[in-house]
Amino acid sequence: MPRKDSNEIYAGVDLGGTSMIAAVVTAKGRILASREASTEAVKGDWAAAVDQIADTIQKACRKARVRPATLSGVGVGAAGAVDIVKGVVVSAPNLGWSDAPVTRALSRKLGVDVHLDNDVHVALIGEHALGAARGAKNAVAIWVGTGIGGGILVDGRLHYGSRGSAGEIGHMVIQVDGPICGCGRRGCAESLSSRTAMERDVRALSEAGQRSAALRIMDEIGKTRMTSSVIQKAIDETDPIVLQVLARAQKAIGVLVSNLVNVLDPELVVIGGGIAERLGDLFVGPIRQFAYEGFIRQSDRETVRIVTSTLGDRAGALGAAFMARDRS
Amino acid sequence: MPRKDSNEIYAGVDLGGTSMIAAVVTAKGRILASREASTEAVKGDWAAAVDQIADTIQKACRKARVRPATLSGVGVGAAGAVDIVKGVVVSAPNLGWSDAPVTRALSRKLGVDVHLDNDVHVALIGEHALGAARGAKNAVAIWVGTGIGGGILVDGRLHYGSRGSAGEIGHMVIQVDGPICGCGRRGCAESLSSRTAMERDVRALSEAGQRSAALRIMDEIGKTRMTSSVIQKAIDETDPIVLQVLARAQKAIGVLVSNLVNVLDPELVVIGGGIAERLGDLFVGPIRQFAYEGFIRQSDRETVRIVTSTLGDRAGALGAAFMARDRS
Repeated sequence: MPRKDSNEIYAGVDLGGTSMIAAVVTAKGRILASREASTEAVKGDWAAAVDQIADTIQKACRKARVRPATLSGVGVGAAGAVDIVKGVVVSAPNLGWSDAPVTRALSRKLGVDVHLDNDVHVALIGEHALGAARGAKNAVAIWVGTGIGGGILVDGRLHYGSRGSAGEIGHMVIQVDGPICGCGRRGCAESLSSRTAMERDVRALSEAGQRSAALRIMDEIGKTRMTSSVIQKAIDETDPIVLQVLARAQKAIGVLVSNLVNVLDPELVVIGGGIAERLGDLFVGPIRQFAYEGFIRQSDRETVRIVTSTLGDRAGALGAAFMARDRS
Repeated sequence: MPRKDSNEIYAGVDLGGTSMIAAVVTAKGRILASREASTEAVKGDWAAAVDQIADTIQKACRKARVRPATLSGVGVGAAGAVDIVKGVVVSAPNLGWSDAPVTRALSRKLGVDVHLDNDVHVALIGEHALGAARGAKNAVAIWVGTGIGGGILVDGRLHYGSRGSAGEIGHMVIQVDGPICGCGRRGCAESLSSRTAMERDVRALSEAGQRSAALRIMDEIGKTRMTSSVIQKAIDETDPIVLQVLARAQKAIGVLVSNLVNVLDPELVVIGGGIAERLGDLFVGPIRQFAYEGFIRQSDRETVRIVTSTLGDRAGALGAAFMARDRS
């Protein structure tokens, strides 16, 4: 990838179902400033979201003392299925959008080039440039959140596939006739191990017997969803239901990891997303052990690293900026 | 890939558990001559097999009126796990070998460069050059036989991964806690849909109830294994057990196909191996339908082609020759 003039400055936006982060980043990856904003108010209204993205970028630019018009490019990583060529968010259930031509609208608004990809792709670009996947040639990213997203690095470059949509690892079926998935099919990795699946299992076990501490904690702190912080608090209380459900999810993610390692032969698997960032090796350690059991090549236990993302919630915005840099 | 002098001639060998085929091939892919030999006598003795491979190549050369010493290279595709860098067959259960330094021994014997890869990788190279995957940039090969092997094409080139062993798609777990696989784990695609798995299921159903016609046919024609020809004869008799077992295997392969399409986003999936070659769309058609149901992107139904290999049993030898050409 040709390196750009090191004076060039880019903006990267990580656009999630609950919040967005915009960062102003140098060509070498120094974050000059960043801003966060809630995306709750723009659900189902992508045009309003474009205004909000532009506003958040402009505020970050002001903080960084950079004029928005001088940006060399803007990258956006969106939680959902995107068409990277057309620059359209095809389907983003967590944002309530479909067929949203975000790139064109944002580009008009800011007067700079805008590039789009999905959130896990850009997180992998970030981790590859400056985080856990630094220097890797072949790697896989698995992001565990409300769903499970992925990215694949082949020979040091993101693998897009023939229509730009490679990496749907969350919808790899690992349990034929397993639980119903958000996609309508059964037994996808996501249906067994996303945060949504864990919450479903915690609720079911609570209804069938003792109530999980997680549900009490959610009531106490006023959350309607079992977030990563709720999971952590329940673990701190040694809640047997959350521990059991977590172990089941870790086993499923371990199977997903070994499937991907057997098929793709990467040197590295990066696990990220809120729960991985919060729990660290408490989450990733058991996944690693389950994955080891599934390696068809025993030697992979010594050679394949399975690690937690290191850039945390900055990976997406940073990676989005790098994507803009590399595609400009 | 640089094209070699079109006068150059290569030999390619497809080395399987029951037979080998050696072909003498021009740089452009014209097969000048080929020879087949049984590998039954060299099981468990790779050194004897090297003598036999050399002999088979020499006989094919004689038929083609080519002096073996003038070959520009020899490629060997072996049924098993290989180390392509060291040129060693690491493990080939069907040949009864482990850690066999075939490349060095054969090269000494013939006085020409020898290159090694696994049988499905070279079959995909063959299908990509002259068969069903011609012109594809991103493709997946699934070879169904006693096991299930695979190959992945990324941007027009075989994806080897970080240790040269990518493509172990047969050991993708699609049914956690499913049937025991030859690898010792449970629920691999291979344990649900290889010819070995089908035979296991036919025997189990025959023991539990009515005897399958397949077992009678095996007795009649003196086969100890349920080969592709036995399967076809049983289908011709509308044997309910074989039809049921075949449908179950096709469903599992369909799940494997959709998993790979969702993850890798290829434009093409080629299905090969004895049973696919013999039954054609009778085998691949239902797999295609099951795969369609598993696509996370509906539009993939229109854009991803799922086809039968077209080179048949020549794919391996031809691909092995091309591999030698491209690596020389």
